[in-house]
Amino acid sequence: MRGQVVAELSVVPIGTGDAGISRYVAACVEVLEGRKDLSYRLTPMGTVVEGPLGKVLEVAGQMHEVPFGKGASRVITTLKIDERRDKRMTMASKVESVRKLRPSVRT
Amino acid sequence: MRGQVVAELSVVPIGTGDAGISRYVAACVEVLEGRKDLSYRLTPMGTVVEGPLGKVLEVAGQMHEVPFGKGASRVITTLKIDERRDKRMTMASKVESVRKLRPSVRT
Amino acid sequence: MRGQVVAELSVVPIGTGDAGISRYVAACVEVLEGRKDLSYRLTPMGTVVEGPLGKVLEVAGQMHEVPFGKGASRVITTLKIDERRDKRMTMASKVESVRKLRPSVRT
Amino acid sequence: MRGQVVAELSVVPIGTGDAGISRYVAACVEVLEGRKDLSYRLTPMGTVVEGPLGKVLEVAGQMHEVPFGKGASRVITTLKIDERRDKRMTMASKVESVRKLRPSVRT
Repeated sequence: MRGQVVAELSVVPIGTGDAGISRYVAACVEVLEGRKDLSYRLTPMGTVVEGPLGKVLEVAGQMHEVPFGKGASRVITTLKIDERRDKRMTMASKVESVRKLRPSVRT
Repeated sequence: MRGQVVAELSVVPIGTGDAGISRYVAACVEVLEGRKDLSYRLTPMGTVVEGPLGKVLEVAGQMHEVPFGKGASRVITTLKIDERRDKRMTMASKVESVRKLRPSVRT
Repeated sequence: MRGQVVAELSVVPIGTGDAGISRYVAACVEVLEGRKDLSYRLTPMGTVVEGPLGKVLEVAGQMHEVPFGKGASRVITTLKIDERRDKRMTMASKVESVRKLRPSVRT
Repeated sequence: MRGQVVAELSVVPIGTGDAGISRYVAACVEVLEGRKDLSYRLTPMGTVVEGPLGKVLEVAGQMHEVPFGKGASRVITTLKIDERRDKRMTMASKVESVRKLRPSVRT
């Protein structure tokens, strides 16, 4: 499963004058919806993405660009990449392996 | 809503000799299940927590301790806290505000 | 060395109307200077802190509060805690152990 | 200064059987030393990098690969990108703008 990763992305505009940032997040999600090579899922604290490392890095660059296009002059983007090569790991399998050990877990 | 935060926690043991860490994550979730003062939700990349800041910091310290109790000799814990005081913000409202703008978003 | 950690803290106000945030960072540093129980060092991307876990969590809560006191209505604080119990680990020793292997490293 | 960013990178191997990871970090630094298009500086909690966004994403992918080449079967890489387009921002200027406000700051 070389190069297949699970990652989390968070893109935050700074200094916009509005504490709400959902319109920027919604525009970032639009970038992900346009890609057939990546799966994603929005969480309350970021976006989890699954796919080849190169594609994840590419989309990180694209999503980082989005708030600038909407008028922001500063953007902080955080990307956390988790890759395992001894066995297949996916967004679903990561949660499932915890649920097997603790069925009561809320997801 | 002073002091009410949405946060994300990730606890990772280092040097355990096993690339799988779900048994540590499951034990961390057990800490959260024991608390009446916090809501949580496991995601593929961490655990989202909602509650008063002081309680979130307290549980972060407790979860950081868990892998040591299971034999780990090094632990890296990441905590991201998001707090808004001009209006009420929850795990649910953060996702909902994006969905309003982009109903097709996957969650 | 139970409970002695090296950590990194980053406190970012959202929606302030100004892309520069150094006055908030300077005020957060003031909190650290007032503590005798913690060492710190400012880097271009955050503040590295060293001390007992409980004190680090306490100061994280204090620093998270700072931008609200200066008018921000939303704050995102990131805390990464690294703790090792099989041997003593400090801010200095972490860098030194890399320098031993690669003396040309820039710090 | 479009596309010129200050970033922080952290690459952590999981499950290696050794709580020490400096040999992996040293090998990641080697990647940075080979690049003329990026500046870097090692801190106790990561590596701060400065350069064009595309180059930073490229080197993030290269550094993420390093521990696999040294036998790790799982790697977690964290990248935080800070970009400002209304004025020039560098590793040095970020620290300097805080020092101007608080000359006693330790760096």
